[in-house]
Amino acid sequence: MTGAELPWAALRQRLLDAGVLAELGEPGLFALGAEFNRAFDALDALYVRTFADLNAESWRFPAVEPKSVFEKTDYVASFPQLTGSLSVFTGGTPEHAALLKARAAGAGWEDHLHPSGLMMSPAACHPLYALLTGSLPAGGRTFDVLGSCFRHEPSPDPMRMQTFRMHEVVHVGTAESAIAHRDQTAPRLVEMLTSIGLEVEYVLANDPFFGRTGRIMASNQREAALKFEITTKVYGDEAPETAIGSANYHNDHFGTAFGILDANGQVAHSACLGLGMERTLLALFAKHGLSTNAWPQAVRSALWQGNE
Amino acid sequence: MTGAELPWAALRQRLLDAGVLAELGEPGLFALGAEFNRAFDALDALYVRTFADLNAESWRFPAVEPKSVFEKTDYVASFPQLTGSLSVFTGGTPEHAALLKARAAGAGWEDHLHPSGLMMSPAACHPLYALLTGSLPAGGRTFDVLGSCFRHEPSPDPMRMQTFRMHEVVHVGTAESAIAHRDQTAPRLVEMLTSIGLEVEYVLANDPFFGRTGRIMASNQREAALKFEITTKVYGDEAPETAIGSANYHNDHFGTAFGILDANGQVAHSACLGLGMERTLLALFAKHGLSTNAWPQAVRSALWQGNE
Repeated sequence: MTGAELPWAALRQRLLDAGVLAELGEPGLFALGAEFNRAFDALDALYVRTFADLNAESWRFPAVEPKSVFEKTDYVASFPQLTGSLSVFTGGTPEHAALLKARAAGAGWEDHLHPSGLMMSPAACHPLYALLTGSLPAGGRTFDVLGSCFRHEPSPDPMRMQTFRMHEVVHVGTAESAIAHRDQTAPRLVEMLTSIGLEVEYVLANDPFFGRTGRIMASNQREAALKFEITTKVYGDEAPETAIGSANYHNDHFGTAFGILDANGQVAHSACLGLGMERTLLALFAKHGLSTNAWPQAVRSALWQGNE
Repeated sequence: MTGAELPWAALRQRLLDAGVLAELGEPGLFALGAEFNRAFDALDALYVRTFADLNAESWRFPAVEPKSVFEKTDYVASFPQLTGSLSVFTGGTPEHAALLKARAAGAGWEDHLHPSGLMMSPAACHPLYALLTGSLPAGGRTFDVLGSCFRHEPSPDPMRMQTFRMHEVVHVGTAESAIAHRDQTAPRLVEMLTSIGLEVEYVLANDPFFGRTGRIMASNQREAALKFEITTKVYGDEAPETAIGSANYHNDHFGTAFGILDANGQVAHSACLGLGMERTLLALFAKHGLSTNAWPQAVRSALWQGNE
């Protein structure tokens, strides 16, 4: 296939031409234009309204998390290929001079930096678990979290950004309450996405675990039916579907890692329902066109409730 | 002074106790609570309303920018101490095994990562200049940008976060139009901040240039009156003031670096007016209390326009 025939190439060009996105110079890094942000705010508010009855505790997280949190999630064991670590300069004037000398010589001056103890957060709910000290109340706790995520998977496909935001409803409690959270919220998200004109499917899935061992982990995850994805066809019937959301039961992974106990003193179980904001928005632009004012009336009503 | 007597200690504890912020485990990294985010959205909208007559082109930027952009700004020459670079894993299964072995031994496994060509963006307007190719129209162009910024200055003072958002109005044009933009928008931001109950001053300032050479650069910047800051007293009359905004004339620094030309084919000049969102919000919580519902009626009217 030539470039123009690649499934994502036409959409990418349309998004850039319309100023919905602009390229920053590295695959998967984009500036977000006015129409994109207008739709973002509306989709974000719709997600909050959809799950308002959960009375979830609301937290927002920055793009960076402490290494102490990152280590507890064991992320680098399963997903080294997606991991991002921050390096910083800790020297004085002589070390700076050496850095600038390397830079002037065209060498990679990052060798003059050192690990900072800070990591790019790979998932919106990871920093949340670090806030949950002590025992949970009976019934567990439910959270509404939005966070900026980083995954190092450079791609020209605009549906695969390296930085993106994920909006999640998360429950931490018992195995029963966690599984119930996943299985009760996921159909409501499917319904929400249907209300804004997306044709979606809810399918068994697995995470992109790394390497040979990872293939076994992915297989185990599927067998245990821990992970489901909400997918949509952005590039037509011939191209693969794209996941825009996921529903995950973590078992006691985070409860054990972060020392969270349920009301009975047992290790807590958790589940999350996540919506990939950028992917969902691009799916909307692909489906309904590049100008939000021209989106179908039913979609605009669902998103803006008549407050356009 | 004991910990409780440090200027920032009492405010920090009040913010944490009220759930406006929560600690993530590293200095300057916080989860943002519901009251914080409610006020964020209102302040953000107020900033947009304040400068709506500029008809600025709106862009939003992620926390990460390409190294190609970072290099053009020359940031690491002036501010190495604030710089953050992303390292990633590029190996296969054997390299991953080596990383995990180092990790299991308690060693710093970041040595197994490599520079990614991605940097933490230190200022909201830096990625903007990368979008401006070719010549500007007569009168220049004006932008409304919001971006997530990283500066490596770990501190227990909640007013000094390592990740924060900056909302800016930026002008790129001639020297005259850039200076006019700075000098006309800054008093309007002072007025906006006064309308929400903050006592602010507009003062000559300099950037925290690094090292001995940096002291000369700072002195030159002051002599040329390139940078002003909007400051407020968050910790009482005895403690130093905190900058919550800045107004900067960049001369042709970014025009030269990014090859931007004005309508006459001359190198473009630029200026930006920036509001530090997190700092401004914490100044509001310090001044008006930890519950937005209890903020003075005039402040609530300015922020929410009766739409609470």
